[in-house]
Amino acid sequence: MKTAEETISRALDAFAIELPSWGFANTGTRFGKFVQPEAATSTAEKFADAAEVHALTGSSPTLALHVLWDLPHGVSDVPAIQALEQQHGIRAGSINPNLFQRQEYKYGSICNPSAEIRQMAVQHLLDSVEIAQALRSRDLSLWVSDGSNYPGAQSIPKRIDWLMEAMAATHAKLAPGQRMLIEYKPFEPAFYHTDIADWGMALLLARHAGPQAFVLVDTGHHYQSQNIEQIVAWLLRERALGGFHFNDRRYADDDLTIGSIDPYQVFRIFYELLSDASGLQQTAFMIDQSHNMKGKIEAMVQTVCTAQELFAKAVLIDRERLAGLQAEARLLEAEECLRSAFWYDVRPAIRAWRRHKGLPEDPLAALRASDYLERIRKERGERNAGSTSSYA
Amino acid sequence: MKTAEETISRALDAFAIELPSWGFANTGTRFGKFVQPEAATSTAEKFADAAEVHALTGSSPTLALHVLWDLPHGVSDVPAIQALEQQHGIRAGSINPNLFQRQEYKYGSICNPSAEIRQMAVQHLLDSVEIAQALRSRDLSLWVSDGSNYPGAQSIPKRIDWLMEAMAATHAKLAPGQRMLIEYKPFEPAFYHTDIADWGMALLLARHAGPQAFVLVDTGHHYQSQNIEQIVAWLLRERALGGFHFNDRRYADDDLTIGSIDPYQVFRIFYELLSDASGLQQTAFMIDQSHNMKGKIEAMVQTVCTAQELFAKAVLIDRERLAGLQAEARLLEAEECLRSAFWYDVRPAIRAWRRHKGLPEDPLAALRASDYLERIRKERGERNAGSTSSYA
Amino acid sequence: MKTAEETISRALDAFAIELPSWGFANTGTRFGKFVQPEAATSTAEKFADAAEVHALTGSSPTLALHVLWDLPHGVSDVPAIQALEQQHGIRAGSINPNLFQRQEYKYGSICNPSAEIRQMAVQHLLDSVEIAQALRSRDLSLWVSDGSNYPGAQSIPKRIDWLMEAMAATHAKLAPGQRMLIEYKPFEPAFYHTDIADWGMALLLARHAGPQAFVLVDTGHHYQSQNIEQIVAWLLRERALGGFHFNDRRYADDDLTIGSIDPYQVFRIFYELLSDASGLQQTAFMIDQSHNMKGKIEAMVQTVCTAQELFAKAVLIDRERLAGLQAEARLLEAEECLRSAFWYDVRPAIRAWRRHKGLPEDPLAALRASDYLERIRKERGERNAGSTSSYA
Amino acid sequence: MKTAEETISRALDAFAIELPSWGFANTGTRFGKFVQPEAATSTAEKFADAAEVHALTGSSPTLALHVLWDLPHGVSDVPAIQALEQQHGIRAGSINPNLFQRQEYKYGSICNPSAEIRQMAVQHLLDSVEIAQALRSRDLSLWVSDGSNYPGAQSIPKRIDWLMEAMAATHAKLAPGQRMLIEYKPFEPAFYHTDIADWGMALLLARHAGPQAFVLVDTGHHYQSQNIEQIVAWLLRERALGGFHFNDRRYADDDLTIGSIDPYQVFRIFYELLSDASGLQQTAFMIDQSHNMKGKIEAMVQTVCTAQELFAKAVLIDRERLAGLQAEARLLEAEECLRSAFWYDVRPAIRAWRRHKGLPEDPLAALRASDYLERIRKERGERNAGSTSSYA
Repeated sequence: MKTAEETISRALDAFAIELPSWGFANTGTRFGKFVQPEAATSTAEKFADAAEVHALTGSSPTLALHVLWDLPHGVSDVPAIQALEQQHGIRAGSINPNLFQRQEYKYGSICNPSAEIRQMAVQHLLDSVEIAQALRSRDLSLWVSDGSNYPGAQSIPKRIDWLMEAMAATHAKLAPGQRMLIEYKPFEPAFYHTDIADWGMALLLARHAGPQAFVLVDTGHHYQSQNIEQIVAWLLRERALGGFHFNDRRYADDDLTIGSIDPYQVFRIFYELLSDASGLQQTAFMIDQSHNMKGKIEAMVQTVCTAQELFAKAVLIDRERLAGLQAEARLLEAEECLRSAFWYDVRPAIRAWRRHKGLPEDPLAALRASDYLERIRKERGERNAGSTSSYA
Repeated sequence: MKTAEETISRALDAFAIELPSWGFANTGTRFGKFVQPEAATSTAEKFADAAEVHALTGSSPTLALHVLWDLPHGVSDVPAIQALEQQHGIRAGSINPNLFQRQEYKYGSICNPSAEIRQMAVQHLLDSVEIAQALRSRDLSLWVSDGSNYPGAQSIPKRIDWLMEAMAATHAKLAPGQRMLIEYKPFEPAFYHTDIADWGMALLLARHAGPQAFVLVDTGHHYQSQNIEQIVAWLLRERALGGFHFNDRRYADDDLTIGSIDPYQVFRIFYELLSDASGLQQTAFMIDQSHNMKGKIEAMVQTVCTAQELFAKAVLIDRERLAGLQAEARLLEAEECLRSAFWYDVRPAIRAWRRHKGLPEDPLAALRASDYLERIRKERGERNAGSTSSYA
Repeated sequence: MKTAEETISRALDAFAIELPSWGFANTGTRFGKFVQPEAATSTAEKFADAAEVHALTGSSPTLALHVLWDLPHGVSDVPAIQALEQQHGIRAGSINPNLFQRQEYKYGSICNPSAEIRQMAVQHLLDSVEIAQALRSRDLSLWVSDGSNYPGAQSIPKRIDWLMEAMAATHAKLAPGQRMLIEYKPFEPAFYHTDIADWGMALLLARHAGPQAFVLVDTGHHYQSQNIEQIVAWLLRERALGGFHFNDRRYADDDLTIGSIDPYQVFRIFYELLSDASGLQQTAFMIDQSHNMKGKIEAMVQTVCTAQELFAKAVLIDRERLAGLQAEARLLEAEECLRSAFWYDVRPAIRAWRRHKGLPEDPLAALRASDYLERIRKERGERNAGSTSSYA
Repeated sequence: MKTAEETISRALDAFAIELPSWGFANTGTRFGKFVQPEAATSTAEKFADAAEVHALTGSSPTLALHVLWDLPHGVSDVPAIQALEQQHGIRAGSINPNLFQRQEYKYGSICNPSAEIRQMAVQHLLDSVEIAQALRSRDLSLWVSDGSNYPGAQSIPKRIDWLMEAMAATHAKLAPGQRMLIEYKPFEPAFYHTDIADWGMALLLARHAGPQAFVLVDTGHHYQSQNIEQIVAWLLRERALGGFHFNDRRYADDDLTIGSIDPYQVFRIFYELLSDASGLQQTAFMIDQSHNMKGKIEAMVQTVCTAQELFAKAVLIDRERLAGLQAEARLLEAEECLRSAFWYDVRPAIRAWRRHKGLPEDPLAALRASDYLERIRKERGERNAGSTSSYA
């Protein structure tokens, strides 16, 4: 029988979570950005930052790329990205098309009533598939921000048809082994209706598109109090779970650090995931956070460490005993069985694993002790000072 | 071209909404019941009340029956129900099994970890199908209240399997032309997880069960701010919308009168429904309300009248003009086009339709002017006084 | 400098949380009750159960009483209660009037449009004050369930006046040292408006009533995502926090076990409370839970143990260091400083404290090992079997 | 007895609603702005647009100004504003300080842990008071966006003290007749805690600051399902309601057009307001909307017209009859009495009033028929094309 330390060590060996390139750049709320001197202003800097996070944590070997910001010239930017992969030892992760930034997308991208604009948007998806192939990146992460702000303003049924068409066209372009992950979100930036509002809609789109389409669960994209782990269980059963965008929130899609508001929820999600070994293997773990106040790189290190901790707690659950208690409806004992793993202090075991791996025991302290932050603040500070707040 | 009055008149001719037998009996909250002297205490009285509502409104020819309360002896109660149908000119509507009241269902009915209890629950569903066949009632309305109160207490994936099995077994028993409608609800009476929590889960169950299974939308069974009309549009597209349980609420599943809190939402739901003529035809309109304070029969009359009014507004929408404005993304004009039908005062046209049909112009006033309420209060008052509050 | 174990030990010595007498009786949802053979059916049995919980946990020396159910004959029941206090070594805790169960309260109790009914309700409050005095119970816990279900049905401003009058009349009857705690709740059992809906309304009522009136915070009586610990901070500052009704929930006022859904929230509430030593001293900790599925006594033992654990975590926060980090806006370090106490596994220290106190190390195991449950199931089972489910 | 037309006409004569200067400029979501050629790019253009809206609707004689954007040089900009007032016949309305845009405010403005930054923020408030005095503008509208994103990151109690100080200092600077309106908001742009989160906090701050401080209710700044009209009733009773920021939303603070999602709620708010004639007189009606898709000026015209319509419906309520029905708890009749005013089609009466006033009967059609939009699109289009989207 394995000790807790061994169980955790083996679990962390296999644990990886992808960083978002946009998480290293200045971002903010609609009321403005608080500009950070260390924010990355180029894709090269984002790779450098990701490499630093991975060097400290050992769990973030890939970097999600945003096509519009990281490959603005499309597939012709691929060689430059490949050079960065080589240089930093970080692989390109999921490829994220952008369907919200062009002025043409005011009334929608792939759901726009204009056939011409829909075509422009679909073409961007096809280009993104091509980029992913060139980068040998498995996953295309599709977030469709389309929607409407007022009842009656748009035809919901027509837009469902257009969604179906665009997803099918994109799927048709996928090479074997490639996947498309369809994200859902119930609100923001459209306020009355969002075309892909929940997991049910995303699943129907994936089913219609084809066997390489899956659902992407962003933990912040739910109604308050929605039971996310139950959705995970259903998607696993349907062999339709493609991956996660992890973050946390109190009210809306606040893009806060994973587990910072409700750590027990993340633990429960991992518990459901671990119920299905083959499903877990197919599930991409990605971070999608936007840090407006915390230092960008510190926040990423904290995020990866927190994910490690919560995952380590989840692997400690005595699943066999739990299944027995559930079968006998011994509710309170089952609950305590689950929860005792949550209360176990995994930090010493994780420190031991880090020592063993040659990683710093306290990655945040190691980051502060290094000269990395100081160095990049100097290098990037002036450029960042030039960027301005977005409101007004 | 038809006048508004003609359009409304034709729409109301075809409009029917089913009354719930349990809506005439004393009900309450977990804190107690306020007992009404006119509450029905037998199925015969419920038929009488439904007939009174239909006589006043002309739109409620059917009565939903609850198996446990209206046919406690199963199919052997069918002849008695048929006699009541004859006597009151009201047909039996949807048949509602009960999966929540037996003590055995403490840890679930069709999702109970005990195979024996699951079997008992499935048998009740099969008996209910048989009852529906005997009564020539098309629809079986399935509300599964199963769930759990605490993380870890139950295995969500196992319970999905059991749900799938029970639904398939029930579907297998359906005669041609019969349908089963699967309801969903995200909370209450189970608090941590509800086995059929949303339309996505209900749809997967229906698909797995077979072609005669559909989804039942209860307007109160959603998260706050959820866009219900969008769900309706998706279900219509999937040919999976079976019917509605109408009611309203502010916070939870409050079972208030339709349109009493948010009338514009009901109008928008009717707008989406009217987008799909064949879908509309397959969609059962049912009321599921629980009046703790309003007079039971008055509340039902008010409910049917409100439904008529909101439906009448929705049929006035100039759909052709609206489609054109949507196609050109003339957002504000499209919104005003939709909304101008909502602001149209349909009450005079409805009064005209009632006159034409020989119905009272003001059904609530007619009810008060009649001796019906006085009579049943006398007949039933003593029995009701004996019933007591439920708490403590 | 104290060790964590010493800090926890001292904190638990001073920690007490009050049990609710109604938490030992059969309760349920509006859909029915699942009857437990061990449920208490008399106040004597509730005292016995509370004594058992206290014997196992060492932290629940008082029992909140519900006037209508525990002292149905008012002050003349006091001697019987005093005898139970003596017999079981459990003191009467807060006194809870009942303003929701009488049929007269259909349209409100102290907010009823009928002056006569308002007077009846106020008299019940005055009787409850008298009972509290006779029992030397400091706190009257006032939950006013009044409200309305439909816009327009009642005059909100008039009902504010009536609330003010009733609270002032009750305050006038308080003896020196007595307190009245005013609870708030935004929904249920009234659905459109609840007369005391939030802490702002409760505070205005308390201020108007007089200096012995305080606000009672029930953790389940908030909107989703509401920041309860911030409300606690404001009430502490205003010297207006009287106490807590602890429980947890996912969606509505689910009355689940403390910390079972969001344990981090409870920790944060304790953190704010511990910021204000004098405030903490005046704050009554009470449990208000309604266990429909868990064993009543097991659930109470689990609740007290969980409260001990979360409180023990909160006392470990390095407040001095945290204040310094906050002052310097070192956000991430401040967050980690707070959270590291949450991740500390306090269970060994609590077990040590229990050993030291002569309490069982694992109170739940001790309860199961004892013959208490078996004995009361035998004694009470038959009576409980006779009680029936409340719906229909 | 007055006819409905007379009642509406008199009500509209007295009805005015203030336009926000920032509502005419380009704004967006955190994901970007959709740039409009007609967006105003200077305060002069905002005055011109406001004058156009007032010319069409007759109900918007004042323009709320945002200090940072409209008077960037403080009081020395006052003469220029006065010239615009003269030129356009539009008076300066409420004065809105800006506490969120400076980089210094990253960790808060008047709640910043740095005394120096707090002082800077307070000075801005005092400057704004001076501006208001110079412009003879009665109301200072204070929205404090301060808060924190993570538990533990900031000291909530210390920040309450700082809030109290800043509000008192601002109040001390007010001239007789001036008012300060304190706004509250539960979320965004801070995600874990917002320093002034609800009306209770705003009211305590106003009370502490002094008799010229009032509460400002923004309809979008509430939890979902919160009963806003009840809060209005409480604030009226406390003589603490200063004004409204009107807008609508489905999920968060979406800043949509008034009544576009839930028109019945606005009607109910007006109903409560009209219960208190003196309170109504002291209540400023202001619009706070941010139109990302609708044409800026069209949207403002639509907003004022919608406010007129909903107000016209509310004045039609037969308050005397309603009070009688409420007193007798004739719930259903009271509800219908309230609601029948909502269903009354006020549009013909409003058109009549407009004719009588020399206003266009259909202000939106008149705007489209005029050359105003075409003209400003030409004038401003080029400048707007240069502005870019804010994300990335």
